[in-house]
Amino acid sequence: MAGSTLGDLFTITTWGESHGAAIGVVIDGCPAGLSLDETDIQIFLDRRKPGQSRFTTARKEADQARILSGVFEGKTTGTPISIMIENTDHHSADYSAIKDVYRPGHADYTFDAKYGFRDYRGGGRSSGRETIGRVAAGSVAAKILKELGISVHAYTRSIGKIVIPESEYHYSEIEENKLYMPNNEYAQKASAYLDECIHSQDSSGGTIECIVTGMPAGIGEPVFHKLDAALAGAIMSVGAVKGVEIGDGFLASLSKGSKNNDPFYMNGTTIEKASNHSGGILGGMSDGSKIVIRAAIKPTPSISQGQETVKKSDTSSLENTTISIKGRHDPVIVPRAVVVIEAMTAVTILDLIMHNMTSRMDSLIKFYQC
Amino acid sequence: MAGSTLGDLFTITTWGESHGAAIGVVIDGCPAGLSLDETDIQIFLDRRKPGQSRFTTARKEADQARILSGVFEGKTTGTPISIMIENTDHHSADYSAIKDVYRPGHADYTFDAKYGFRDYRGGGRSSGRETIGRVAAGSVAAKILKELGISVHAYTRSIGKIVIPESEYHYSEIEENKLYMPNNEYAQKASAYLDECIHSQDSSGGTIECIVTGMPAGIGEPVFHKLDAALAGAIMSVGAVKGVEIGDGFLASLSKGSKNNDPFYMNGTTIEKASNHSGGILGGMSDGSKIVIRAAIKPTPSISQGQETVKKSDTSSLENTTISIKGRHDPVIVPRAVVVIEAMTAVTILDLIMHNMTSRMDSLIKFYQC
Amino acid sequence: MAGSTLGDLFTITTWGESHGAAIGVVIDGCPAGLSLDETDIQIFLDRRKPGQSRFTTARKEADQARILSGVFEGKTTGTPISIMIENTDHHSADYSAIKDVYRPGHADYTFDAKYGFRDYRGGGRSSGRETIGRVAAGSVAAKILKELGISVHAYTRSIGKIVIPESEYHYSEIEENKLYMPNNEYAQKASAYLDECIHSQDSSGGTIECIVTGMPAGIGEPVFHKLDAALAGAIMSVGAVKGVEIGDGFLASLSKGSKNNDPFYMNGTTIEKASNHSGGILGGMSDGSKIVIRAAIKPTPSISQGQETVKKSDTSSLENTTISIKGRHDPVIVPRAVVVIEAMTAVTILDLIMHNMTSRMDSLIKFYQC
Amino acid sequence: MAGSTLGDLFTITTWGESHGAAIGVVIDGCPAGLSLDETDIQIFLDRRKPGQSRFTTARKEADQARILSGVFEGKTTGTPISIMIENTDHHSADYSAIKDVYRPGHADYTFDAKYGFRDYRGGGRSSGRETIGRVAAGSVAAKILKELGISVHAYTRSIGKIVIPESEYHYSEIEENKLYMPNNEYAQKASAYLDECIHSQDSSGGTIECIVTGMPAGIGEPVFHKLDAALAGAIMSVGAVKGVEIGDGFLASLSKGSKNNDPFYMNGTTIEKASNHSGGILGGMSDGSKIVIRAAIKPTPSISQGQETVKKSDTSSLENTTISIKGRHDPVIVPRAVVVIEAMTAVTILDLIMHNMTSRMDSLIKFYQC
Repeated sequence: MAGSTLGDLFTITTWGESHGAAIGVVIDGCPAGLSLDETDIQIFLDRRKPGQSRFTTARKEADQARILSGVFEGKTTGTPISIMIENTDHHSADYSAIKDVYRPGHADYTFDAKYGFRDYRGGGRSSGRETIGRVAAGSVAAKILKELGISVHAYTRSIGKIVIPESEYHYSEIEENKLYMPNNEYAQKASAYLDECIHSQDSSGGTIECIVTGMPAGIGEPVFHKLDAALAGAIMSVGAVKGVEIGDGFLASLSKGSKNNDPFYMNGTTIEKASNHSGGILGGMSDGSKIVIRAAIKPTPSISQGQETVKKSDTSSLENTTISIKGRHDPVIVPRAVVVIEAMTAVTILDLIMHNMTSRMDSLIKFYQC
Repeated sequence: MAGSTLGDLFTITTWGESHGAAIGVVIDGCPAGLSLDETDIQIFLDRRKPGQSRFTTARKEADQARILSGVFEGKTTGTPISIMIENTDHHSADYSAIKDVYRPGHADYTFDAKYGFRDYRGGGRSSGRETIGRVAAGSVAAKILKELGISVHAYTRSIGKIVIPESEYHYSEIEENKLYMPNNEYAQKASAYLDECIHSQDSSGGTIECIVTGMPAGIGEPVFHKLDAALAGAIMSVGAVKGVEIGDGFLASLSKGSKNNDPFYMNGTTIEKASNHSGGILGGMSDGSKIVIRAAIKPTPSISQGQETVKKSDTSSLENTTISIKGRHDPVIVPRAVVVIEAMTAVTILDLIMHNMTSRMDSLIKFYQC
Repeated sequence: MAGSTLGDLFTITTWGESHGAAIGVVIDGCPAGLSLDETDIQIFLDRRKPGQSRFTTARKEADQARILSGVFEGKTTGTPISIMIENTDHHSADYSAIKDVYRPGHADYTFDAKYGFRDYRGGGRSSGRETIGRVAAGSVAAKILKELGISVHAYTRSIGKIVIPESEYHYSEIEENKLYMPNNEYAQKASAYLDECIHSQDSSGGTIECIVTGMPAGIGEPVFHKLDAALAGAIMSVGAVKGVEIGDGFLASLSKGSKNNDPFYMNGTTIEKASNHSGGILGGMSDGSKIVIRAAIKPTPSISQGQETVKKSDTSSLENTTISIKGRHDPVIVPRAVVVIEAMTAVTILDLIMHNMTSRMDSLIKFYQC
Repeated sequence: MAGSTLGDLFTITTWGESHGAAIGVVIDGCPAGLSLDETDIQIFLDRRKPGQSRFTTARKEADQARILSGVFEGKTTGTPISIMIENTDHHSADYSAIKDVYRPGHADYTFDAKYGFRDYRGGGRSSGRETIGRVAAGSVAAKILKELGISVHAYTRSIGKIVIPESEYHYSEIEENKLYMPNNEYAQKASAYLDECIHSQDSSGGTIECIVTGMPAGIGEPVFHKLDAALAGAIMSVGAVKGVEIGDGFLASLSKGSKNNDPFYMNGTTIEKASNHSGGILGGMSDGSKIVIRAAIKPTPSISQGQETVKKSDTSSLENTTISIKGRHDPVIVPRAVVVIEAMTAVTILDLIMHNMTSRMDSLIKFYQC
């Protein structure tokens, strides 16, 4: 499978570069009969929009989603949904400074190594704008999941060393601060830290947490398409992610079985777990508890302080140089990536939710007898 | 794609349960002309064999690999390589204790939730024995990579809180201790800790690190099939893995751009990086540096101390109960999982190495002009 | 895989309905470095354009291809190529006559059966306009193949009972008649026959033949992804196709081994076949001879004479009715489908050409040593 | 996807060569809870067994199917079903006559062209024995379909010029003659013709027809994974098939719309078609009528009369030669291929039946509310 398609049944194919004519996604396999209009998508896109706070880029893209196919009289038809977002702000800036220079921490060198050259304008295909198609697709997946009683929510867990302990999560505060943190006080501390970063021409990393509630048990395909494997692959495919954890994640490596195992017990007639170290996944399938995923986001690689690197000289030979990346850059990627992680989670879960429908003979018999 | 197949060009399909007749893998897409015999596979299988130290189960499986197809006169033919390992030790033990009980930390409940029932003998498909097929496939992938100058090596980085700092790695010691740790002293400390775990009827987690050297730059497909995304998905699909990191991983979330960015520089005529926080991957493609991956392994869920859980009573209704899992169980999964992580890494990298061959027009033209 | 994506390495995903805002295709996996502009695509699209003769619909679509991504400074970049064609002629006609009626020979009923409702405007997704995305993708594939020395050519072999015998093919005449027949005299006879069809408010079927020259031997993957299997699947996926043949096809069923086997012989230092009953494919792989494929196209289902069928009444119950399909309809699909068959052939062959590059160890070693 | 795997949800991966240790298939994605034992598979395998009449090879393979995984206490568990058939009759014959010679009509040359060498023993992977895995998988698919009320039946429609007209089909006679023809008289004529072929050291082609009854309407995915496209691809992937038709097939190319369109009408409260020129498929989806597929089978390429061809001399250069293929060979492939076509049809239809379950939002909602 070529690299821009994800999923087996709910399939998304993204396309577009930062400074091309447009950017978009084709969703194939969306069930027929879902109410859908451009507003559903726009709400998600607006969450990753730049220019929302002093920590995100000033580029004022409208980022208006347009549905070009697959919806008729307000309902999905079962055929591919093509969503396009025009790149309205792609005035040809002066790229001479980065055209021949490999920016540290960016994909400039690896793109050249693979393809022999690259669209250097704004990072081309490796730009953060590539996530627009993912988020548009995620908005559709999330809407379907919602109809099935499943909710997906992501938020900023930490920025640099400012980490919110789980005991201090106040989910209602997520939308109250520009960093999407579930604690306004920590958000203020993080803001102060980011101001420092800006001042020192530097940037910060952070972590995003995503939770899924309402998941039925048994979702995920044993062995290679486990729920956690699919989530890890989908989330690690987001540009700046360098680590993924489920439940206790790396802490589980320090733990003991007696503590890490979650006891089952009966809550009335329902089986539940007394703890959730597993993060809602056992043996690669959902166990009925809340699913908990964490992603580590690296610091924004574009910083304005000088960095040593390599450039192609006119004669195509390589030579050492120094680069200072001009222009306004987010000192942190995390807040804008929150909705991207949520989107990837929604898309992944929906695909496995659909896959699961064929797991049992009695389901097939019931389906075709109706 | 059903859940037991991985890869697009170098494709592996595993099958088999812990206590079925046999377990195996079909490798499809292996290039023709590779020298291969059963010894190549056996060397890898022996590394995950139980009964090698006092920390691994005593079950004495021969685990003898048999090649049933795809090799002719000592060379792969390009057709599917079917490898089978008979389950010689599957005397029907008494499973009445676990037949109806959901062992905490295991996939018993989720299998039932998905399929309505399960093969309860020794964990069935969710047994650690499922990894035999992966390891057999990994041995073939590793052999191909070796011919391309690429080496994959995994080892135990930590057991519980015994973590070897990178500065104290002595790779030559990996094979000198039963825990596959690159430092014999730490291995001794870890052994002492595991003895404690056994004594307290408990188990420990740990981490595995895997490094890849000799990787050309540019391997990995942008967007969803990034090298790190593919690795994360493949490694998270191993039973007990709860987290995956590339390079600095979660530490990158605490870092700053000025430190996390790896400067490029010219080493003679070769472009290199002055540091490797990226773990050898930028923008989802290999950057020519050593690839570094870490996996978090949870503590063995099977422990002999009593645990609260739920069982199905005769009337099929659920009720609370307590379980003590009898028999000898590894107090730690990590040492036996080392070769599994190595195998998943090899298989994943090879698939993308093959995919990369079609990235450029000039490669196609050259290939078909020869 | 959802239904609108085809291919493993050179992947195409089409989208769009006849009367939606636009129609298009995303090509993923196109090698980097191919010269490409909108003219390359337009030449192909113009060959399927309506309004070219009195036997094709009068709808005057501009059908102007726009490349939205994946091309930079005139070269493909290796990233997805998104091509969009706006539907400029989709003035809302009056669809009340067909909205609730199942047109015989069309997909109206089956779409309703599958999805519960359908976009009835102009056939929606099952319209012939769906092939625009295929043709756009085919133009790119054909351009790549041309650089590899491989040519794909399709033409009309028969219309109704007017069948051109192979001995009377004059390839140079294909472009000289509106029916794309390799014999102008037969084209004239066919035209007379089509005039009759129009007069009697009826339509005709026909066959298309496609030949591929310059194919290296050994292309195609044994067993399920054989070259002929892939071609048959791709070509049968074109709306009105009801049969596919390779080489002698159904005639081979009447033949004997002594005649049907093609003898090999040495032509200088080159191995060749003395005949080509196989149509250039043996054991699912190209044998170095010209590849010959034929597709049977059914008569245009839209005819203006009255037909018995079923409609949904206001109360949603079904009742018998009669329908006369108004408007100008092509009395034959064949001439406009010629370029579609050519496109599907090009796309399919390219995918397997790329796949073949990983067939041998020595190819991998050579590739990564360069 | 590598070449030996077929299907998206019900996935089959075959492996094995004619004269290797064994041959087999891994079925992944089989729903849990199906009663299955080796007898179910054996019944199908016995239908393709050699040595059943004087027109099939005398090789007495036991061809005993063994289920190695995926079945527990008589039921499928939802995990991969591995089926193995040992090659008991692979005594090393003397292959020196064909080792270096390219048999006309066989895959010898194309295998060498692709892979550089081949397993020449009995045709290796391109042997008819490769279909054993397909038939084993087909037996499982057919059993599932039967539980859904869907039946698949194939039979010999013609051998050479002996074609049974549809009006003379007597389905009950299929099992009464060794040629699996639905008319014993025609079978007798065909036998006489085959005796002639044997006498003249020659072989014959023929056609197989396969019908599917009980199909619900709406099965098949529009555009590339149409039901007819999937069937055409699957059936053309069988070794000797050179053509595939649906419904009227190539005859539709000679027809007119007024005749070829099947009128819909109400039969009580059920919508039906007054004719079935479509062969049960409209717009790539089942239309509720009987599905009708035909495959053209070429004459057995192995004939004992002398044929001109090319051999590799000791110095690896090629030279002209003559070959007479010794040993007993079926004068016709058709009767043994009947069950193979049936198997491919069953496997293909089941995959799309499963895919169809996710077509509508209301199906998802209903499924997850139960």
